[in-house]
Amino acid sequence: MADEFEDNAPIASKEDKDRENEINRNLIPDAGKVPLDPAQLWGKGLIADIKRTVGTHWIEEMTNFNQKTVAVSLLMFITVIAPTLTFGAVYGTSTNFQIGTVETILATAWTGTFFALTCGMPMCVLGSTGPCLIMTTVIYEITKTMDVPFLPFYAWVSIWTFAYTTITAFFDLTRFVKLATKFTDDIFALLIVSIFIFNAIGSPFGPGGLLRYLDPDNKSHLDFLKELGGEEYDYLTSAVLSILIGIATCATIFTFRGLKTSPFLCNQASRDSIHDFSVTLGVVVWTLIKHLVFPSVELEELNVPSSFEPTFTCCDSSCTTYWPDQCTDQSEPTGTRSWFANMMDLNGKSHAIFVAAGPALLSFVLFYLDNGITWHLIYSPRNGLKHGESYNWDLFLVGFCNCVNGLLGLPWLVATTVPCIVQVNNLTERDAYGNIISVQETRLCHLVSHFMVGLSLLFLNAMKLIPMPVLLGVFLFMGLASIGRIEFWQRFLLFFQQPSRYEKTAFVKYMSIGRYHLYTILQILFFAGVFIVQNTKAIAIVFPFMTLLCIPARLWFLPKIFENWELLLLDGEEEEVSEWVAAKEQHKEKNLEVDSDFKKAPSDLTMDITGHTSGFSFDL
Amino acid sequence: MADEFEDNAPIASKEDKDRENEINRNLIPDAGKVPLDPAQLWGKGLIADIKRTVGTHWIEEMTNFNQKTVAVSLLMFITVIAPTLTFGAVYGTSTNFQIGTVETILATAWTGTFFALTCGMPMCVLGSTGPCLIMTTVIYEITKTMDVPFLPFYAWVSIWTFAYTTITAFFDLTRFVKLATKFTDDIFALLIVSIFIFNAIGSPFGPGGLLRYLDPDNKSHLDFLKELGGEEYDYLTSAVLSILIGIATCATIFTFRGLKTSPFLCNQASRDSIHDFSVTLGVVVWTLIKHLVFPSVELEELNVPSSFEPTFTCCDSSCTTYWPDQCTDQSEPTGTRSWFANMMDLNGKSHAIFVAAGPALLSFVLFYLDNGITWHLIYSPRNGLKHGESYNWDLFLVGFCNCVNGLLGLPWLVATTVPCIVQVNNLTERDAYGNIISVQETRLCHLVSHFMVGLSLLFLNAMKLIPMPVLLGVFLFMGLASIGRIEFWQRFLLFFQQPSRYEKTAFVKYMSIGRYHLYTILQILFFAGVFIVQNTKAIAIVFPFMTLLCIPARLWFLPKIFENWELLLLDGEEEEVSEWVAAKEQHKEKNLEVDSDFKKAPSDLTMDITGHTSGFSFDL
Repeated sequence: MADEFEDNAPIASKEDKDRENEINRNLIPDAGKVPLDPAQLWGKGLIADIKRTVGTHWIEEMTNFNQKTVAVSLLMFITVIAPTLTFGAVYGTSTNFQIGTVETILATAWTGTFFALTCGMPMCVLGSTGPCLIMTTVIYEITKTMDVPFLPFYAWVSIWTFAYTTITAFFDLTRFVKLATKFTDDIFALLIVSIFIFNAIGSPFGPGGLLRYLDPDNKSHLDFLKELGGEEYDYLTSAVLSILIGIATCATIFTFRGLKTSPFLCNQASRDSIHDFSVTLGVVVWTLIKHLVFPSVELEELNVPSSFEPTFTCCDSSCTTYWPDQCTDQSEPTGTRSWFANMMDLNGKSHAIFVAAGPALLSFVLFYLDNGITWHLIYSPRNGLKHGESYNWDLFLVGFCNCVNGLLGLPWLVATTVPCIVQVNNLTERDAYGNIISVQETRLCHLVSHFMVGLSLLFLNAMKLIPMPVLLGVFLFMGLASIGRIEFWQRFLLFFQQPSRYEKTAFVKYMSIGRYHLYTILQILFFAGVFIVQNTKAIAIVFPFMTLLCIPARLWFLPKIFENWELLLLDGEEEEVSEWVAAKEQHKEKNLEVDSDFKKAPSDLTMDITGHTSGFSFDL
Repeated sequence: MADEFEDNAPIASKEDKDRENEINRNLIPDAGKVPLDPAQLWGKGLIADIKRTVGTHWIEEMTNFNQKTVAVSLLMFITVIAPTLTFGAVYGTSTNFQIGTVETILATAWTGTFFALTCGMPMCVLGSTGPCLIMTTVIYEITKTMDVPFLPFYAWVSIWTFAYTTITAFFDLTRFVKLATKFTDDIFALLIVSIFIFNAIGSPFGPGGLLRYLDPDNKSHLDFLKELGGEEYDYLTSAVLSILIGIATCATIFTFRGLKTSPFLCNQASRDSIHDFSVTLGVVVWTLIKHLVFPSVELEELNVPSSFEPTFTCCDSSCTTYWPDQCTDQSEPTGTRSWFANMMDLNGKSHAIFVAAGPALLSFVLFYLDNGITWHLIYSPRNGLKHGESYNWDLFLVGFCNCVNGLLGLPWLVATTVPCIVQVNNLTERDAYGNIISVQETRLCHLVSHFMVGLSLLFLNAMKLIPMPVLLGVFLFMGLASIGRIEFWQRFLLFFQQPSRYEKTAFVKYMSIGRYHLYTILQILFFAGVFIVQNTKAIAIVFPFMTLLCIPARLWFLPKIFENWELLLLDGEEEEVSEWVAAKEQHKEKNLEVDSDFKKAPSDLTMDITGHTSGFSFDL
């Protein structure tokens, strides 16, 4: 193995290396530095955001309707509805059904539609996320400890959070999120994508996923056993068929997408259609196969509520206890909770209004980071979006929407990373080499898909026809399709590859192998930190803060280990890297000319001059 | 669609086309002709074969032991043992157990080992095939009608067949097989490969295959039901897991093979090892997963005999009836049939010795064609084998081996197409573009794999651990890996592709689109004929004759429809095609020069000269 190891830096003395390093360091001024945008205080940033985005592109983004819009709308509907229902069920058990599936659907539908119409960055879709769920659970626990009703307290927290987001937007504090670089973005993206893949395949950290069906005590099996009686239900058949259909759905989608660059079908338009509708087709095909070929096998279904009304059914007219769990002797609920919580019903503890400011700070940081990092990831120059950023305006809007959600007892929503990546990727036109030709920036997909989530309340029973494993197959596809684009992941894979066969990226070409592997190892350590926090129930709430830690680490810790040009090559935007490479190549050429001049001179003179060159920078 | 249709021939008048055609026709003398080798009568061909092959390369082919030898031997063992056992079971039911699994294993082991050591074309492995099975069944029916014992009659047929093959080899009649061209080869290859794939996936024409497990009346389910009792066996679990494991095995093998051209693993040697052992690894991995993860699910096993003795167990010492089927009251068999049949025990009908010459003619033609076409396919110049052909000597040997088999009551063996293709492909080293670098021509793989088949009689119970679906996955892989290399299949796929995106092969470049599609359609018709005959029980025996029909069709019928140069482009060997293309391009260049000269002349003169050119050939 050792003999195959090709170090790309020439074998050289320490002096030579120092000299080379010195040259590299001075090729571009400010290499590897992360600039902070100038502040736009007193609402200037907010107004600039609105002008730049909604004010300029709204009509274009609302009218660019075409086949892609339809295809991506359907795709986004599938992407959004399944986690919405799943999160809805978990909210139910976490908050004693004060918030449930109906509330989650309603929140997703109205917030998504409203946000799509008014926001500045319509490519970022909102949805339920793990951190919000955990935060809500924490608030529920606080209300139990404080002995105040949950919904009014939750409403007050929402109001406080809205206040914080307003202040933040007003003083342009969102610009600090832009200090995050590819280093942080990639850690966050890989984390979210890995959660997606783990949730689809099944992981040691959570209950869901295809492989989890092999566990006879899986919830879906227990539910069917209860429903059908032990004799008629064989969990193993259900498990194996679930795995088969999940993998097949994923493979079918990849196959349909692969047609795009193949010579098959009669023209490019038909190939593009199959590509665009691949997820919808995959879902339809395997849903049909399930029902036609395996009608007798029970597979897990989407957990769909039976009617459209608040989930919380009351034991009595005071509506503080939950039917039937807390009044098993009663055959009928007295009613459901009202949509608007009575804000002043704080069990006589009015100070709770001010206590709520504390947890609100936590949930504000959550909104700030979860949204911020996702927005940063999606609107990175790599993705080729042209319509401009709008962090202040959009954060303000998220605060507003979640304030309304809080008042109605609906769950909070923030930007959901993977659906955002999926939407951008599917609206992007690429050439055969993977370079971006154009991105169709539109509000329509976001709007239509979330409107359809609302409509789904009307055809809840039809939704039940889609087996859960088919949706897990879709998530698996989304995870696998997204992970390949993350540079951190590509660099991680280099550990398993033969160095001489590494793809010849800029850092492979100019840095020594140990240096970029060291960088990857540091990134893995940070990733592991975030991953462990995210998967440890007790401390999961601080996961966004762990991600936040990556920003100062990149700003102050990494420059202590790496040269500025190394950071530029590993962490810079494409343009910066190209600029540096150009400067480097230019320098090399000049040097070669100088070298060949030297060769004509006697060798001792060359030695002398070479000695001189180390220690100061070339100004070529 | 029509506007996307690109015709490669320039739009031209009929006269222009005729002229172009005339030019093409005369570029190469004897284009599209199929030459017949001169006869080497009176054993000269036989001796030439031995000198050319065994006499020259035997030591090299017996000593080129390396990692590839081990890998391909294991692969060939897996490839050969499974059909051997499957055919064994069918032979049992077809001949009332006069020939069974033990006989099939024994015949494969000794014939393969002996043939590997003595034959001239060791890259062609022997095995049980469908036509031989059908032929044996026919002979069994004849003996029932004639009321003579099966085994002695079968022995006489074998002796007659040996006589015919000896005469054929002595008079070099095998040279007629070489009249088959790619046209016939491809039809035959696609037929055999499609049978392989159908047998793996499950087809409407046969009982086997992964999808067939979904039928609750599948034999494997009925067997398990009988064995385990209805309560404990759920056929659907078994069916779905079978499909999952079959597809997973196939996918795993393809993934392991794909590593070869990837940058993964530390060096090329380790990538090559994984590639070479991919099938063995796939089988091991999924056999382990089956037993570790799904210990409780019953999957179909290889049908392995319990002890090494003739399958036919006798009711009494005369041994004419089969225990226990024909004497159900007896608790123990009296013994088994003796290995050597008493040749004169013909139930007093001595004329049967001469009657046997009739069916022997049929089985001779079967040997002649089944071997001949497979040999022709494998030793085609495309495959890059250098050690020379040996049709006469090898046919003589096959006759001899099958004569011995006939005397011992063992099944006949002939060259088995797909294992041969698999062996050659796996011993071939290709560059990144799929061009052959070298082929390791060896006797060792053939020898070791068939010797291992013999050894398997010692570890019959271990063989049972490999689930049948894993082997079906291997067959699926073999079929899919082979089908892509068949030009007929590639041309068939063009029907589903956009003409402007067709791969730019010689015929696409120079022929008009309708012409080569017509050729493909004719090939499909012949394929359909052979396919239907092959899959219609009553007439399946004439399937090799149907294949034979393709040869005269190519010699006399196709030239009536196609120009000689068209046949050359579609049906010629690579070298001929290159030669023609070179001549064509040279002609075009010269013409271009002439054209540019013409352009200087007045236009009416050009017209006149152009008119003259049609009707006679250019001698450029």
